[in-house]
Amino acid sequence: MKLKALLIAGVIAAMPFSAQAGDAAAGKAKAATCAGCHGANGIAVMPNYPNLAGQNAAYLESALKAYRDGQRSAGQAAIMKGMAAPLSDEDISNLAAYFSSL
Amino acid sequence: MKLKALLIAGVIAAMPFSAQAGDAAAGKAKAATCAGCHGANGIAVMPNYPNLAGQNAAYLESALKAYRDGQRSAGQAAIMKGMAAPLSDEDISNLAAYFSSL
Repeated sequence: MKLKALLIAGVIAAMPFSAQAGDAAAGKAKAATCAGCHGANGIAVMPNYPNLAGQNAAYLESALKAYRDGQRSAGQAAIMKGMAAPLSDEDISNLAAYFSSL
Repeated sequence: MKLKALLIAGVIAAMPFSAQAGDAAAGKAKAATCAGCHGANGIAVMPNYPNLAGQNAAYLESALKAYRDGQRSAGQAAIMKGMAAPLSDEDISNLAAYFSSL
């Protein structure tokens, strides 16, 4: 099973993914809204919320887009869809860069 | 908007969520499959995968269940659905406890 996981990782490694570098300073300016749940320093205020500090930016970007675009439906997805609704792809890239930098 | 976020956080804080404590040692025994992508130490091997080390256990639990139960459809959701398919709720709780402990 570990070999299978490694093989899958290898296949995925060959797939393109967004590596666009966001502007962390611009992200910080938009991050106040996130702090209520994810903490001003990216450490979540509740155990059922994820910490964002130091998380991989490309992952944060894909997750935030998935919430915005209705591709997640469990947990706090309805709230995150509302939070992410007004964000452009650039906003999301910047927020991802910011939280990744913490 | 920050006030709105805080109000939402307060409402959610009053909602019940899973606080079942998993068995980290049992989780470790099941975690080899995860290492191919998320790293043996919970630090992801690729920037589009999330780090799991130190993440909140309750969040990890809800995320893994969401993948298993088809409530996420973006990014690597298809792969994660396959990975999580054989896992019981207890397995997931244990894995969450393990990665949270790293």
